[in-house]
Amino acid sequence: MSKKHSNFEEVAKAIKEAGSIVLFPHVNPDGDAIGSSVALLLAVRKLGKKCTILVDEPVQSNLAFLDKGYLSVKSDEENHDLSIAVDCGETFRFEKRQDCFFKGKKTLCIDHHKTSVPFCDYNLIDPARAATAELIFYVIEALGADMDKEIAEAIYTGILTDTGSFRYSNTTGDSHRIVSRLYEHNIDSNRICVEIYENISESKMALSAISLGKMEIFAGGKGAISYVDRAMLKETGALMSDSEGITEDMRKISGVEISALLKEYDNNEIKVSMRAKSIGDVSTIGAKYGGGGHVKAAGCTLHMNMEKALKIMKKEIEENLNSYGI
Amino acid sequence: MSKKHSNFEEVAKAIKEAGSIVLFPHVNPDGDAIGSSVALLLAVRKLGKKCTILVDEPVQSNLAFLDKGYLSVKSDEENHDLSIAVDCGETFRFEKRQDCFFKGKKTLCIDHHKTSVPFCDYNLIDPARAATAELIFYVIEALGADMDKEIAEAIYTGILTDTGSFRYSNTTGDSHRIVSRLYEHNIDSNRICVEIYENISESKMALSAISLGKMEIFAGGKGAISYVDRAMLKETGALMSDSEGITEDMRKISGVEISALLKEYDNNEIKVSMRAKSIGDVSTIGAKYGGGGHVKAAGCTLHMNMEKALKIMKKEIEENLNSYGI
Repeated sequence: MSKKHSNFEEVAKAIKEAGSIVLFPHVNPDGDAIGSSVALLLAVRKLGKKCTILVDEPVQSNLAFLDKGYLSVKSDEENHDLSIAVDCGETFRFEKRQDCFFKGKKTLCIDHHKTSVPFCDYNLIDPARAATAELIFYVIEALGADMDKEIAEAIYTGILTDTGSFRYSNTTGDSHRIVSRLYEHNIDSNRICVEIYENISESKMALSAISLGKMEIFAGGKGAISYVDRAMLKETGALMSDSEGITEDMRKISGVEISALLKEYDNNEIKVSMRAKSIGDVSTIGAKYGGGGHVKAAGCTLHMNMEKALKIMKKEIEENLNSYGI
Repeated sequence: MSKKHSNFEEVAKAIKEAGSIVLFPHVNPDGDAIGSSVALLLAVRKLGKKCTILVDEPVQSNLAFLDKGYLSVKSDEENHDLSIAVDCGETFRFEKRQDCFFKGKKTLCIDHHKTSVPFCDYNLIDPARAATAELIFYVIEALGADMDKEIAEAIYTGILTDTGSFRYSNTTGDSHRIVSRLYEHNIDSNRICVEIYENISESKMALSAISLGKMEIFAGGKGAISYVDRAMLKETGALMSDSEGITEDMRKISGVEISALLKEYDNNEIKVSMRAKSIGDVSTIGAKYGGGGHVKAAGCTLHMNMEKALKIMKKEIEENLNSYGI
């Protein structure tokens, strides 16, 4: 079965032909997955279609403002016309909902991830896009559905979060051009930014403060390393997932080229999260220890105690930096 | 002497008539003041004009990338044709350079601050603009000077920093529209974001970690308060100015409506920095103690020890929140 890429018009046609649609964002959905799904749901409902968004679990608290009863955690057993994978280009990213997905009479994938391999009847996949929400913007345009404030705010959320507030290198002139058009619908961008970025739990903030307080700068100021152990979680009431962002915070230090956070999941199970700034390639360190990732963001798991793991990672980072002559 | 507002064409005409121009950004210049000045300097030099930017002191390190020898700390004694106040609408914001400013045969002010009162021969002042850099974009267009990558990156820096990476409520559709046009000149937005936001000193990061570790949440989770004392500065090697941003960080906590940071400048000299999120008005607290500011950002100075100051501020914040029935 050959799977081909579709353009906006073909996708709009497929959507128009469907009376009932189920949307499938990826597991642990982020702002782009939820924002894109909500925008698309609202647009197709305007065209008189039945639509629901099927998820594995309720959305994280700082995205809850987008869900006005649109998300369903129950498997949709109806024989719907069209299944759309939103912001996920591989079936393992919505594994538990796969059965329901392929019950759709037709399938469509709208995604911007590099790894996406066409697996649907229709595939709108563009890795040059900063966010799937950018594709949704043009899909809605092709559908001829009226844009309104709520749709525009959902699309804005997707672009905002996937570009890291327009800071990441995936941001393009078109990302800004689309957003400027969303403002025409009176989006309250500041309120959304508060929801997204000023919604950190007290325990997460406390964990971050403790971990950054333990940070060590090494390799002549070019390396930064710290850790989160189970005692810190107990002290702050935080979850290990609350350690997200600490590695990026360390990279923000002037002169630091590689940062690493070591997370104690269990005795002798230390998960390492690494980031590189301009030079250096943390994916090679990740791969050496059975992990992987990208040049600027990678990870691995070490089976040893924290003290030993910190020592090894410092050595690896120092060697990595040296190999670039820095 | 009546001072009137000028439009882009009048400003362009005034600039075109000048052979030599000196630009005056405000003291402690931020990304918008420097970005706007550098962009304007490069554009008018393209038109064959002599131009320099006069500042009081070298620019802060995370803006140094913009200055390729354009900034001068020496008073320019020549009898120049045009003085331009950039991003500052009041003479006290460039007090030490006032004499040189008024030596210019003509004067021009380009600014977006609300408090700006026309004081020049030509005044281009628009408080609806998120950044002076937006005005500079249109001035350059009106001048007919060729935009290039370096000019576009300087304008981008101004808009980026004054909108808080496009998150503040001053951001408009036109902010994004202008930025989308800057991308046409191949700006390296990611590199600029790294320069601006990933250039924090190790001591500033350490100070932030200690201060956030001392944070207390009160008023049923709606208030957050912490402090920076001189012992913390000694321990981290940080300056008091490195405490900037901690108040905003505390406001980021879910549920927190008002945050306050108390800074010990001297024995019995505690400077208070406050922020409000959605509700609450910290300007009234500031004013009550002889300070002031805006509804969402205000401050004051207390003449007492830290312990007492923390107690008083907690009480004030609690009462302020109560007055809004929250």
